[in-house]
Amino acid sequence: MSFSYVSHLYCPKCDNTYSVEEKNQLCECGSPLLVAYNMQELKANLKPKNLLERKADLWRYHELLPIQNIENVVTLGEGLTPLLHMKNTGQDMNIPNLYMKDEGLIPSGSFKSRGAAVGVSKAKELGVKELAMPTNGNAGAAWSLYCAQAGVTSTIVMPVDAPEITRKECTAAGASLYLVNGLIGDAGKIVAQAVKDYDLFDASTLKEPYRIEGKKTMGLEIAEQFGWEVPDVILYPTGGGVGLIGIYKALQELQELGWIKDKMPRLVAVQAEGCAPIVKAWKEGKLSAEPWQDAETVAFGINVAKALGDFLILDAIKQTNGCAIAVSDETLLEELNKVASAEGAFVCPEGAAAFAAARKLRESDWIKQDDRVVVLNTGAGIKYPNTVEVDAPILQPEDKIVRDYVR
Amino acid sequence: MSFSYVSHLYCPKCDNTYSVEEKNQLCECGSPLLVAYNMQELKANLKPKNLLERKADLWRYHELLPIQNIENVVTLGEGLTPLLHMKNTGQDMNIPNLYMKDEGLIPSGSFKSRGAAVGVSKAKELGVKELAMPTNGNAGAAWSLYCAQAGVTSTIVMPVDAPEITRKECTAAGASLYLVNGLIGDAGKIVAQAVKDYDLFDASTLKEPYRIEGKKTMGLEIAEQFGWEVPDVILYPTGGGVGLIGIYKALQELQELGWIKDKMPRLVAVQAEGCAPIVKAWKEGKLSAEPWQDAETVAFGINVAKALGDFLILDAIKQTNGCAIAVSDETLLEELNKVASAEGAFVCPEGAAAFAAARKLRESDWIKQDDRVVVLNTGAGIKYPNTVEVDAPILQPEDKIVRDYVR
Repeated sequence: MSFSYVSHLYCPKCDNTYSVEEKNQLCECGSPLLVAYNMQELKANLKPKNLLERKADLWRYHELLPIQNIENVVTLGEGLTPLLHMKNTGQDMNIPNLYMKDEGLIPSGSFKSRGAAVGVSKAKELGVKELAMPTNGNAGAAWSLYCAQAGVTSTIVMPVDAPEITRKECTAAGASLYLVNGLIGDAGKIVAQAVKDYDLFDASTLKEPYRIEGKKTMGLEIAEQFGWEVPDVILYPTGGGVGLIGIYKALQELQELGWIKDKMPRLVAVQAEGCAPIVKAWKEGKLSAEPWQDAETVAFGINVAKALGDFLILDAIKQTNGCAIAVSDETLLEELNKVASAEGAFVCPEGAAAFAAARKLRESDWIKQDDRVVVLNTGAGIKYPNTVEVDAPILQPEDKIVRDYVR
Repeated sequence: MSFSYVSHLYCPKCDNTYSVEEKNQLCECGSPLLVAYNMQELKANLKPKNLLERKADLWRYHELLPIQNIENVVTLGEGLTPLLHMKNTGQDMNIPNLYMKDEGLIPSGSFKSRGAAVGVSKAKELGVKELAMPTNGNAGAAWSLYCAQAGVTSTIVMPVDAPEITRKECTAAGASLYLVNGLIGDAGKIVAQAVKDYDLFDASTLKEPYRIEGKKTMGLEIAEQFGWEVPDVILYPTGGGVGLIGIYKALQELQELGWIKDKMPRLVAVQAEGCAPIVKAWKEGKLSAEPWQDAETVAFGINVAKALGDFLILDAIKQTNGCAIAVSDETLLEELNKVASAEGAFVCPEGAAAFAAARKLRESDWIKQDDRVVVLNTGAGIKYPNTVEVDAPILQPEDKIVRDYVR
């Protein structure tokens, strides 16, 4: 039994292949690269029951991850996040089988840690000493932290408007942090230049092939947590879209292993109305998306005007009979408060967007009443203090509570 | 097989007993009450291997929890947090077998959610409709959120200096929140009055017997994660001390079940120099602690001048050959940065205090080089943004990174 059954890298556009033992970024043709595994061999050697005694983290799927030597694994205990039945919220939406995959319960409080754990581990394995990346905040925080453990130097560039806590995380981890008066695209250009100037490894979304392997573990976990069945619908807040592409890839791999049947969940890309390039392309029946102008949303993690993997996102939606849908900031903030007060789950704005989308799709009957529906909450609400306004009385020690104050 | 093997409540001071089917708070004698289980029956019916196929949360130990009907379980997926080998930090401290139990990876980003999950579930089972509690922030946030799911009304009183994010959580959850110009003791007095005035259930630390049952699951998990062995030392940041009392109780129960051997870990109560009543009592060989005057520390969660369970904490330390130790704010903040930059773990100030204590105890040789040592990190660093100062250059989109900036 190998620790990993990784085989090679391939280009989903031009079918070119590359080695997993050398540093690779994009394909010659400009497309992101994907990771292939020796599936037939793995199918013979591994069964679902083998997982039972393994730790409750994403490394339980190490055969389907690209790290070849266990010594290179960098971990903070990420993965196997809860899949919660949202009874109260589901009742309110008339989706009795509504579930939340809660990615708030992960190091750095964001699902970005999955990509970082696997991406940084593989970077370490490949001998990377310095990497750089643009980020809307959470990915930079996660990569900084895993790089700290790995002894890899990190240079992070994020918009000045990115969630403030993510700056603190980068700094605590010892990253070289830069803020830019602009959007993630501007950060990307600065990183691209620095990568050239200083010969850094480029860890930008999909410019290295391994982050997606970390993200795909969300798909593996959802299948395992439902007893190797898939739900009917998965809603995913979509910025760069790596998680959605990853979940689709994971489920295809599980089909190859024969661990799940032919059925695929309908994948839904959820965006904010202030930045909805994928939704626009989907509605227009296009295979790739145009850059969105003047992008703006409180759901900062999905404020991505142009996704490098747009064609992969649109393909995954199409192949699974899914859809793309946008919600307004007002709607998603209202949904955030509904979920917190009904269910006790303080979700991030991006997760709230996905809940709001579920509500809309149920209202239009695209989601049926008996569908089993999974909403991805991509991070902890505690990273976004500005989504809640507090109006609490201040008492002196000698005061007492007068019931009129009670709401 | 019953869902719970709970038997009754008993008083550790006067041996009085009470029913678990009625609302109970303190014993007539003023002591906290503890929960007893039918251990011999459970020993016959449950084996460690029965846990293997259960979910990765604290309800995997439902037989050892006080909720009798599964329908009353209120959950956000809490528990089975990672037990991480801290290789880099351990090397730095010369404690090769240094582990962190990371309670940051839990709903609301604080171990308080364990107590809240079990406490609120039992409150729901007992028909509680309204409860009130004083808090240093995190417990109030956690109880508010679980109460929201349970449909229980919550009134929360916290010091104005409590971490600001915890106000947001209470508000999002729909709690009635009050801030007090004072410390948690002042909040406690206001709650006590409100409990009388409005006939509320008092969910103050140890004034209801079930929170500790949630906290004890940390002990159950540590034992299970080490393969039903216990470490040599457990360091616990101690305010109210419920976690330490709970871990001790858990390990005693596992001994009764025969799942672990006779050995107990040495339990260490870690406090801040600005609020160290337990350390003072321990040094003076007393059985209970005097209230600490002018308590102040950046590790706000352990800013507890007088713990109701002080005698139980001191007893647990004594029985296990443990100790109590205080560290300065300066030392713990320095340790927080060390752990983040060496290991990528952004811990809370209370957790940092426990790491700093491990370093001190190793230096004095109280911790031996080959001891297996577990530090409890009681919450996520992202709830405490003020522990890190950021000094990052702000670039314009047309700028490029000049390497001099790189630290």
